[in-house]
Amino acid sequence: MSVKGPVVVDLKFERREIDAALANAFKDRTVLRASDPDADLSDARYAVVWKPDAELFQRAPKLEVLFSGGAGVDYILGMPSLPDIPVVRFVDESLTVRMSEWVVLQALSHLRQVPTYLKQQRDCQWQELAQPEAKEVTVGVMGLGVLGQDSVRKLKVMGFNVVGWSRSRKSIEGIETFDSSQLDDFLAKTDILVGLLPLTSETRGLFDARLFSKLRQGGALGRPVFINAGRGGSQVEADLITALENGVLGGASLDVFENEPLEADSAFWQMENVIITPHAASASDIKALFRNAESQMNEYEAGQKLRNVVDRSTGY
Amino acid sequence: MSVKGPVVVDLKFERREIDAALANAFKDRTVLRASDPDADLSDARYAVVWKPDAELFQRAPKLEVLFSGGAGVDYILGMPSLPDIPVVRFVDESLTVRMSEWVVLQALSHLRQVPTYLKQQRDCQWQELAQPEAKEVTVGVMGLGVLGQDSVRKLKVMGFNVVGWSRSRKSIEGIETFDSSQLDDFLAKTDILVGLLPLTSETRGLFDARLFSKLRQGGALGRPVFINAGRGGSQVEADLITALENGVLGGASLDVFENEPLEADSAFWQMENVIITPHAASASDIKALFRNAESQMNEYEAGQKLRNVVDRSTGY
Ligand SMILES: NC(=O)c1ccc[n+]([C@@H]2O[C@H](COP(=O)([O-])OP(=O)(O)OC[C@H]3O[C@@H](n4cnc5c(N)ncnc54)[C@H](OP(=O)(O)O)[C@@H]3O)[C@@H](O)[C@H]2O)c1
Ligand SMILES: NC(=O)c1ccc[n+]([C@@H]2O[C@H](COP(=O)([O-])OP(=O)(O)OC[C@H]3O[C@@H](n4cnc5c(N)ncnc54)[C@H](OP(=O)(O)O)[C@@H]3O)[C@@H](O)[C@H]2O)c1
Repeated sequence: MSVKGPVVVDLKFERREIDAALANAFKDRTVLRASDPDADLSDARYAVVWKPDAELFQRAPKLEVLFSGGAGVDYILGMPSLPDIPVVRFVDESLTVRMSEWVVLQALSHLRQVPTYLKQQRDCQWQELAQPEAKEVTVGVMGLGVLGQDSVRKLKVMGFNVVGWSRSRKSIEGIETFDSSQLDDFLAKTDILVGLLPLTSETRGLFDARLFSKLRQGGALGRPVFINAGRGGSQVEADLITALENGVLGGASLDVFENEPLEADSAFWQMENVIITPHAASASDIKALFRNAESQMNEYEAGQKLRNVVDRSTGY
Repeated sequence: MSVKGPVVVDLKFERREIDAALANAFKDRTVLRASDPDADLSDARYAVVWKPDAELFQRAPKLEVLFSGGAGVDYILGMPSLPDIPVVRFVDESLTVRMSEWVVLQALSHLRQVPTYLKQQRDCQWQELAQPEAKEVTVGVMGLGVLGQDSVRKLKVMGFNVVGWSRSRKSIEGIETFDSSQLDDFLAKTDILVGLLPLTSETRGLFDARLFSKLRQGGALGRPVFINAGRGGSQVEADLITALENGVLGGASLDVFENEPLEADSAFWQMENVIITPHAASASDIKALFRNAESQMNEYEAGQKLRNVVDRSTGY
C-alpha cells in the first residue's frame, strides 16, 4: 500500500482564500503550513509555493517536488537555497482564459482609443474619432507558450492581424510566426506589442529603448503600443517612460513592473495613455492550483512522469 | 444596352470622407449631391442617404431604391415624405466586425472592473480586486440579427456564458436562446445585458425600470450591467440613471442616447461606472457603403432581387 506523501503549503496569497481552498484539497494527505513556525516539516515530500520563505528548504529537507503557485518561476529559480528537485509550474485553463481576457481587453482598448474617449468623457465632449478596424492593426505577441498561444487565437478571432515570436518557431494557423533570430523583422510589423514572456537571464531588460524604436511607426494607430503581462523585469522602465513621453510609443498597458507594488511616485500612474493593473492580469485560482498539484502527486506516486517541469537551463 | 441609373448622395457624414470615397465609386453613373442646391435630381433612380433632407424626395421624384448609410433605418422610416420604394439597409463585414470589437471591449471592461481599476490608478492605489472568470458571468444579448449573432459568437470565444433573445427564436451553437415571449426568463439569467436592437414601435422605451429590475441580482459581478449600442430611443434614460444610482445596475456602457449629441449637463458624463462613446460603436465605412450600394444597383439593373430590404411592417 502506497503512503500518500505529506504536503507543505507556503503561498503568499490571501490567507482566507487558501483556507477555503484547503478545506477540500489533499484528501488523505497530511497538510502542513509553513506559516506555522512550530510545524514540523521534516517529512514533507511536496511543497506548493508562491514566494516561499528562504528557510523553507532547510525546514523541509526531504522535498521531492516543488509546485509553483503561478505560471512564472523566476522567483523560485533565483533562491540560493533551492534544492535540485523538479519544479512544476502552474498550467491551468482558468489561468489561460483570464490572461486572454486581459490581453484582448487591452488590445481592444488601444484599438478603440479608450484613453482618448475617457478623457473626452471627463470633459463632457461628444467627438467621434477616426477609427481603424482591427484587421488594419497588427498585434505582435512575444512568447507563444501556453498563454501566448491562447491569446493569439483570440486576438485573431477579434479581427486583428496577428504575428508571434518565440525561441523556437511555432506553426499556428493564420498567424505569421518568427523565431528568436528574427526579432527585428517581427518588430517592424508590429503596431501593438504584447509581452507574455517568462523572466529569464535572456529576457531581462529586453523591452528597452532599442526595441521600442524598432516597432512599426505610422501604422493605422499612428504610433505603436506596448502591453506587458509577462514580468516587469523584462522592461526597462526608464526607457519606457522616455518612449511614451517622446512619442516613440503612443500608449501602454502594464500589469507588471520592475518593483511591485509600483511606487506611488512612479510617472506611470498619471500618464493618460497608460493603463495600469496591479499584477492582476491572471491571478491563480487556488482551488484549481491544489486540484492540479494533487492529481500530479497521485500520478507521480503511481510512477508516472511529472508534467510542466521547468527546464533549469533555460529558466522556464 | 442598359443605361446605368443616376445616383444622388445625401449623407450627413464627414464631407472629406465622402469626397474621398466618391473618387472611386459609381463608375459609369452620374453622381449628384443633394448638398448642392442647384443640382437637378429629377432623374435620379437611386439615393444613398443618412439623415437626408426632408425635401430630397420632392427634388428626386423618380427614385426606385433608397440605400441607407447605416444598419439602422429608424431615421428614414419616420420621414413623412418617404415614398413607397424599397429601403435597403447597410450590411457589411466591416460594420459587423467593428460592432463586435465594441461589444466585447465593453463586456470585458465590466468583467475586469475597469472603472474601479481606473479610479485606483488616478489615486495611485495598487490593490488587486476579487475577479470572477468570464464563464461565471452570463452575457445576454437582445437582438440576434447580423450584429448580434457575430457578437454572441465572439463573446463565447472569450469564455463568457452567453444567452440571446430575438423576436423569432434562433438556433446558435453553444448559446441558449429565447424568443420575445420569454423575455423574463432571459433577463433572470443575465448579468451583462447587451442591446443590439433596431428602434421600432416595439423596442421604443423597452429598457426601462421594470426591465432593469428583472435582471439577475447577486451574480458573479454582484450587480447587473447594461450595455447599449442599438438605439438610444430604446432606453428610458431617467430610469437608467435611477437604476445606476440606487444600485439596481452596477454599471453601463452607452454608445447611443435619447438625444444625440448627449447634452453637456447629462448625469451620465460624470458617473464613474458608466462608459460613454459618441455613437461610434460601429461607424459605416463609406467606401464599403458605396461598393455595396453599387453592386446592388448593378444586380438590380440585371433583374436580380435586392438584398437586406427593410420590412416596413416590422420597421427593420
Ligand atoms: N501577469 C500575470 O498575472 C501573469 C500570470 C501568469 C503568467 N505570467 C507570466 O507569463 C509568462 C508566460 O507564461 P506561459 O505559461 O505562456 O509560459 P510558457 O508556456 O513557458 O511559454 C513561454 C514562451 O516564451 C518563449 N520564450 C522564453 N524565453 C524566450 C527567449 N529568450 N526568446 C524568445 N522566446 C522565449 C518560449 O519560447 P519556446 O516556445 O520556443 O520555448 C515560449 O513560447 C510566465 O512565465 C509568467 O511570467 C504572468
Ligand atoms: N451604435 C452604432 O454604431 C450602430 C451601428 C450599426 C447598427 N446599430 C444598430 O444596431 C441595430 C441592429 O443591427 P442588425 O444589423 O443586427 O439588425 P438586424 O439584422 O435587422 O437584426 C435585428 C435583431 O433584432 C431583433 N428584433 C427586432 N425587433 C424585435 C422585437 N420587437 N423583439 C425582439 N427582437 C426584436 C430581430 O429579431 P428577428 O431575428 O426575430 O427578426 C433581430 O434578431 C440596427 O438597427 C441599428 O439601430 C448601431
